[in-house]
Amino acid sequence: MTFRPASYGACPVPANSADRIEMAHGGGGKLTQRLIDTVFKPAFAFSEEDLTGDSAAIGRSGSELAFTTDAYVVQPLFFPGGNIGSLAIFGTVNDLAMSGARPLAVSAAFVIEEGFALADLIRIVETMRDAAAQAGVRVVAGDTKVVERGKADGVYIATSGVGEIGSRTPIRPQAVRAGDPVIVSGDIGRHGMAVMAARESLGFEPPIESDCAPLFGPVSALIDGGIELHCLRDCTRGGLATALIEIARCADVTIAIKQAKIRISDPVRGACEILGIDPLYVANEGRFTAIVAGGDADRALTILQRHDKAAAIIGVVCEREGRTDAKIETIGTTRALDLQTGEQLPRIC
Amino acid sequence: MTFRPASYGACPVPANSADRIEMAHGGGGKLTQRLIDTVFKPAFAFSEEDLTGDSAAIGRSGSELAFTTDAYVVQPLFFPGGNIGSLAIFGTVNDLAMSGARPLAVSAAFVIEEGFALADLIRIVETMRDAAAQAGVRVVAGDTKVVERGKADGVYIATSGVGEIGSRTPIRPQAVRAGDPVIVSGDIGRHGMAVMAARESLGFEPPIESDCAPLFGPVSALIDGGIELHCLRDCTRGGLATALIEIARCADVTIAIKQAKIRISDPVRGACEILGIDPLYVANEGRFTAIVAGGDADRALTILQRHDKAAAIIGVVCEREGRTDAKIETIGTTRALDLQTGEQLPRIC
Repeated sequence: MTFRPASYGACPVPANSADRIEMAHGGGGKLTQRLIDTVFKPAFAFSEEDLTGDSAAIGRSGSELAFTTDAYVVQPLFFPGGNIGSLAIFGTVNDLAMSGARPLAVSAAFVIEEGFALADLIRIVETMRDAAAQAGVRVVAGDTKVVERGKADGVYIATSGVGEIGSRTPIRPQAVRAGDPVIVSGDIGRHGMAVMAARESLGFEPPIESDCAPLFGPVSALIDGGIELHCLRDCTRGGLATALIEIARCADVTIAIKQAKIRISDPVRGACEILGIDPLYVANEGRFTAIVAGGDADRALTILQRHDKAAAIIGVVCEREGRTDAKIETIGTTRALDLQTGEQLPRIC
Repeated sequence: MTFRPASYGACPVPANSADRIEMAHGGGGKLTQRLIDTVFKPAFAFSEEDLTGDSAAIGRSGSELAFTTDAYVVQPLFFPGGNIGSLAIFGTVNDLAMSGARPLAVSAAFVIEEGFALADLIRIVETMRDAAAQAGVRVVAGDTKVVERGKADGVYIATSGVGEIGSRTPIRPQAVRAGDPVIVSGDIGRHGMAVMAARESLGFEPPIESDCAPLFGPVSALIDGGIELHCLRDCTRGGLATALIEIARCADVTIAIKQAKIRISDPVRGACEILGIDPLYVANEGRFTAIVAGGDADRALTILQRHDKAAAIIGVVCEREGRTDAKIETIGTTRALDLQTGEQLPRIC
């Protein structure tokens, strides 16, 4: 992703020399946004364009390029349905896809802890090879650094991606309008709960597999189908709820969704109940939300259901309602959704 | 840099499950090349083109793009003449420059240790802003992850860069010919010794400052001056000697240099003598070697000396002499240069 927006107002740069980084600064919630707002945004002079998408556009004569980066620190490194390698490839090509960009090339930089098993490194790299092939992209550049024992946690991988933007109109939150339908491309919560179960050695039966997958296929099907795409966002760190809140803030709208429309598999629902976790905030690595022109709702849904039968229209964009970014209707009640303050599941990606 | 070549013959993938990553796997010498050769090269099917440059070319209709990535794990984070932030910007734009590419955009992914002082993070990010401005490029995409205390070492930064290739002919080791002069853009060894002195609290007087600087300026001056550039390589991890050895292996030539022509400042020379370190293998972050067409030697030198008076022609490319990649003539004797096996200065970049 690119640095995400911080539309809740600028905070002063902390003057207190005792201020220290907390785990929640990496959680994708309020503290992450504050860090971006107070440290990165002023330094790098990010434009709103830079800040509101999953990848940055590089203006050039000829076609437009998308450029994105992500660091991966998932723990454990291996989990049902994938490992840090597939995550690093899919996460980055998916950020490109969210700009409607076909991936051209991926780079990978490794920070490896001294003593890490070479066999595990090979397994990860081979998974990256397979994931890249599945996503139709090549890893063309890389780097390896090794740090002393106890200075990393096995391996961290930072991937970057360059893509060519194929859609005629910019796909971005600012294009979202009241009345637009909100579609989700499949069931939610699987990646986060798969990692959580692997980390805590929770033996859910059947085991929950990560949804980790490349997303340019369904995105290009939408583009090729002539769907008027307003905004695409993958529902990674912070889950579906955070994605919708971020879009709503950028677009200055309120997004209303219905609990009954959101597909959550029984194992994920059960695991979330046991652990007291709200699946709306659980990370996905192969799910996205598409906000399209009202007239294209049914056609877009049909296209997405060809890729995943669980794709569903879960709500609608409304005119801004005061301070409410997003709200969810459950049986008889409606409650507002807000960014989480703490860290629900650290090191999920 | 992109993954570097391993032209000394393929090694089998290690079958021993007890094989583990050692610090020297990150040192830029023999073990790094073996790791690339046995793990990354077979998985990602790197072409020789991918492997022999500092950045990878992305073929597209229209102009050609260069794409590169590097992870930065330097310790200490702050040293005379720079910090991890300037290193992360200059290192990446310099890899682009070595392909003759003008930097278009840079991305930065941060892995931050819980408890890291926010003031230090701000100082690093502000240095990155200044370095990017100096290099004429913008940081357009980023990501932050936080890991638990003891799972990183302050902060690691992975930067990637996209550039537009401006030279008419490819700049790469394979273009190097016997008879070509070998030029170095300034004095060598300052970055490595500055970091070493800071790490070991060696109070050299005067203090040694890193040479950390952007290199597209002198490179574009060479291009604009119509110099026929055969190969450019920045003399980072592994120093001048490793850069020359890598070029010689790719080009199947032997490079002969003269000790007396290589500029080393008195403080660097003194520090190297005290510590028993060969300055030819010490990392630089603002120095490169240019191998140009024979007829352009004097003009290229004049152009480079406008940027740094210490630029010098240090040797010549010769026909391949058996197993010798590079050799250096000192008073009365000539010795072969070889890749280092161990790790001279870990975590220098």
